[in-house]
Amino acid sequence: MGNGGNGRSVTSRALDLLGAFDVEHPTLTLSELAARCDMPMATAHRLVGELEAWRALERNADNRYQVGLRLWEIGLLSPVPRRLREIALPFMQDLYERSKENIHFAVRKGHDALYIAKLTGHKAVPITSREGARLPMHPTGVGKALLAFASEEFIETYCARPLARCTRHTIVEPGRLRRELALTRARGYALTNEEMTPGSCSVAVPVFDADGRVEAALGVVVHSARANLTRYVTDLESEAAKIAQAMNEHRADPYPGFVHDLPDEV
Amino acid sequence: MGNGGNGRSVTSRALDLLGAFDVEHPTLTLSELAARCDMPMATAHRLVGELEAWRALERNADNRYQVGLRLWEIGLLSPVPRRLREIALPFMQDLYERSKENIHFAVRKGHDALYIAKLTGHKAVPITSREGARLPMHPTGVGKALLAFASEEFIETYCARPLARCTRHTIVEPGRLRRELALTRARGYALTNEEMTPGSCSVAVPVFDADGRVEAALGVVVHSARANLTRYVTDLESEAAKIAQAMNEHRADPYPGFVHDLPDEV
Repeated sequence: MGNGGNGRSVTSRALDLLGAFDVEHPTLTLSELAARCDMPMATAHRLVGELEAWRALERNADNRYQVGLRLWEIGLLSPVPRRLREIALPFMQDLYERSKENIHFAVRKGHDALYIAKLTGHKAVPITSREGARLPMHPTGVGKALLAFASEEFIETYCARPLARCTRHTIVEPGRLRRELALTRARGYALTNEEMTPGSCSVAVPVFDADGRVEAALGVVVHSARANLTRYVTDLESEAAKIAQAMNEHRADPYPGFVHDLPDEV
Repeated sequence: MGNGGNGRSVTSRALDLLGAFDVEHPTLTLSELAARCDMPMATAHRLVGELEAWRALERNADNRYQVGLRLWEIGLLSPVPRRLREIALPFMQDLYERSKENIHFAVRKGHDALYIAKLTGHKAVPITSREGARLPMHPTGVGKALLAFASEEFIETYCARPLARCTRHTIVEPGRLRRELALTRARGYALTNEEMTPGSCSVAVPVFDADGRVEAALGVVVHSARANLTRYVTDLESEAAKIAQAMNEHRADPYPGFVHDLPDEV
């Protein structure tokens, strides 16, 4: 049947079709899938049919493809995020109870903050963060906390890349971002003020491993109008310390499953 | 390269390797993978290598394969469970706040209860339920609520199958289960008493769609020793009604994404 015009294997091409979906593209037509994967329509048609038959993909009422429930079930078996969630969520629940605001737990993945867990409720300000999604580090609370406590080398690399502007308050000047990160480090917590989304601001603290390396970040996002962010710092620091301790205790487990064990690709 | 001895396509074989993982088998060796997929070692080795290169699979410190973080990210893009979670979680959060106990939201999938969302905390009794996992319907609160309000035909089919015994309290006699389901229907809520796990009991209510069909179930699991289950019923019914209303309002959305739109395979 050939490789559809280039040297990629059938398996990697089928996987590329799955990888074509992202937060901005949760549903795709067959021709959008073919285009995003740089694949002839005939190849895409055949492989998408197989993915649909296996229920890795499903078709919605508009005849657009989307990630199937079966892949959701399989994805949730991934031990790394599962373990992190099991550890962090009860402490996040305590934070939620006292604040009634959005609570985030994130790790660094490449140059992004990857949201591992989120708690929210009816009284929290609506925000776009989602479990399993990535956001840039410089405009988000948890991202800024992860970035500020990363190695000097990583910070330099990050600041040398183009800095996406999410709102008119996003810090996009490398020099200003470096100063902001130095301030964050000195202070021990990160603050954002409408840098990711107009109307919301956040505070976040790092979660350190036993060697003092930043492993995760814990943050709260509130409506700008009711923002007295520093009042959350003590509570965040206290829960972050408990999460750090629990992560350290679980480190002897058969699954390594922690952040610097992850491949560090972008 | 051939099909490794039978007519399955390369894509379906690669997907079968992903499907070999489940809650009881979160990590597998290469030979376990080959055996579970009835695949020659050479084929398994080649395909697992491709899955690992794409990071659908990753290897842990013990050299065992597990579902990779990348597949977790892609799985969470699945619109059906995502929408259900977005709707149910804020109401579940309210229930959690008042009870401090395990809160479950599940749908029927084949003959199982599929756990779509779970909230828990430090004070809740530790239980084995997990988001994305399936449990049998007859011994679980949410499962019994889903089963009791299913069609007569479905109930008959379910009761005619072997009923797994999870504890010595599990109802495994078809006649007794039918009477229990009739009682549940008449009463409007399901109760379990150490039928799934020794030491825990539960109460759950159905979530109906606009046509009166059971679409999901909402339940609370508590320690047997502190069980006055009926005190949760009013609160569960009230939140279930709000979830039902929110689900109904979202039904006009571009994604169908609700329970009876799902393929009904086992």
